[in-house]
Amino acid sequence: MLPFARISIIGLGLIGSSIARAVRQYMPTARLTGHDADPAVRDTAKRLDLCDDVTDTPGAAVIDADLVILCVPVGAMGALAEAIAADLPADAVVSDVGSSKAGVAAALKAALPHATIIPAHPVAGTENSGPEAGFATLFQKRWCILTPADDADAAAVARVEAFWRALGANVETMAPDHHDLVLAVTSHLPHLIAYTIVGTASDLEAVTRSEVIKYSAGGFRDFTRIAASDPVMWRDVFIANKDAVLDMLQRFSEDLTALQRAIRWGDGDALHDLFSRTRAIRRSIIEEGQDDERPDFGRSHE
Amino acid sequence: MLPFARISIIGLGLIGSSIARAVRQYMPTARLTGHDADPAVRDTAKRLDLCDDVTDTPGAAVIDADLVILCVPVGAMGALAEAIAADLPADAVVSDVGSSKAGVAAALKAALPHATIIPAHPVAGTENSGPEAGFATLFQKRWCILTPADDADAAAVARVEAFWRALGANVETMAPDHHDLVLAVTSHLPHLIAYTIVGTASDLEAVTRSEVIKYSAGGFRDFTRIAASDPVMWRDVFIANKDAVLDMLQRFSEDLTALQRAIRWGDGDALHDLFSRTRAIRRSIIEEGQDDERPDFGRSHE
Repeated sequence: MLPFARISIIGLGLIGSSIARAVRQYMPTARLTGHDADPAVRDTAKRLDLCDDVTDTPGAAVIDADLVILCVPVGAMGALAEAIAADLPADAVVSDVGSSKAGVAAALKAALPHATIIPAHPVAGTENSGPEAGFATLFQKRWCILTPADDADAAAVARVEAFWRALGANVETMAPDHHDLVLAVTSHLPHLIAYTIVGTASDLEAVTRSEVIKYSAGGFRDFTRIAASDPVMWRDVFIANKDAVLDMLQRFSEDLTALQRAIRWGDGDALHDLFSRTRAIRRSIIEEGQDDERPDFGRSHE
Repeated sequence: MLPFARISIIGLGLIGSSIARAVRQYMPTARLTGHDADPAVRDTAKRLDLCDDVTDTPGAAVIDADLVILCVPVGAMGALAEAIAADLPADAVVSDVGSSKAGVAAALKAALPHATIIPAHPVAGTENSGPEAGFATLFQKRWCILTPADDADAAAVARVEAFWRALGANVETMAPDHHDLVLAVTSHLPHLIAYTIVGTASDLEAVTRSEVIKYSAGGFRDFTRIAASDPVMWRDVFIANKDAVLDMLQRFSEDLTALQRAIRWGDGDALHDLFSRTRAIRRSIIEEGQDDERPDFGRSHE
């Protein structure tokens, strides 16, 4: 018994197209309708046969849906919700995949005051973007966080949870504000720092860009992966989750300043203390199946 | 014709034991002698048959060598050089693998004023440490940077270069000060930042350690890999390369502050501009063969 029979995906980038592929693979009898604002993406989606139907407007994509998943940058969620409002069936469940939740929930609620809205965030992705970058197993063993409002319909929450479990994800529920704080540290701050250091490295005078690239195996290359993520998506995340990101950034800067001082004064013990503490976290991440245990991310050394 | 026939490796951790394995594989007729200050590491090296002979003192390891490679933390190089001074053959070439070069060169020169010293830095490694973590192909297609003094013996430089090429590395020569600046940005600053953010994330009150681990696939886990690197090695690097690291850190902090301001004021264009610039660097790193082109570092998604 499928949790949903007629699924509509609006936004067919990395995440939307991965959901489409996963639905095809794990719920082959569900009917799948898609839309993307970009005509070129719609053409690609048709060529790849990602959905049973790709519509030219967002409204046409939702007209018969029992689940609508909005897979666009968080800054575009409100306008998209307004654009589907007139065509949305009364009994459809609306969900999304946004990386920040409190602001998105408010925008969806304002645009669709009578809809059943169950926001979600699958914590999964790669540095690539677009409909060709997606794949069906992206959500396997990753966490999907649901942030339903306190008065959300429990049956709808259960159906969205069943949907994500069918795609291979683990599911957790939390309050939107707490989600935004947790993701600020596990995702948003790391992206901000990676973007920053890659920018810093490309702006030096004394070290050439070619040297930065050649000797990147010393650690720098690890940062370039997430700094290659989608610019629009991430611009919107930082604007939408401003308070939590600024809070985490402040703590990070304080800790960095303390280390800076330790280096300046040659305080090796302070450095060693921190460097010894941080190993345990990686071990736990591997034990929990959230990263590859092979050294150097399993990179080839041949 | 081998560049060296009797090779001595002092320090049998990740790098030293990888050199030993690579010598076994690519120069099987070279005689290999090893030493490590830690008796447990010496026992492991014997059990793994990493060298033809593992000696109980550093002096005994170099007595017959034509190449001595010091593979210890940079803060230990000077004392180690003093410890081998009396036993070092007059015609032996002394090299090292330290991640900072100006300070190490000075320490080696002071301890071994009459020796032929050709400092080197293979820009390769994993987050693991110790003699069991090494492997023979670690240096394949990675860069090894030689930083000979201006008056260094050209024949000795050529032999050390031939040695590293035989191990599969690309070789570049540069001035020690320039090396230290380049590596400050491509290696030292990334490690410092990774250690810091992992520390920050483990010290929060509002977000639990278990949440940090569960949702680390949002980006954080990428940082935990290099923050799992050897604490003593990295303590020494930051102390030894203080000036260049503090210079790079200052630039990074300025850039981060500018982004912080852009977030606070909702300046999406400034964010988007930076986030669009940083993709190109990753593409170049992949084109130059310095990282895996598969998305998400080729992590398994099954």
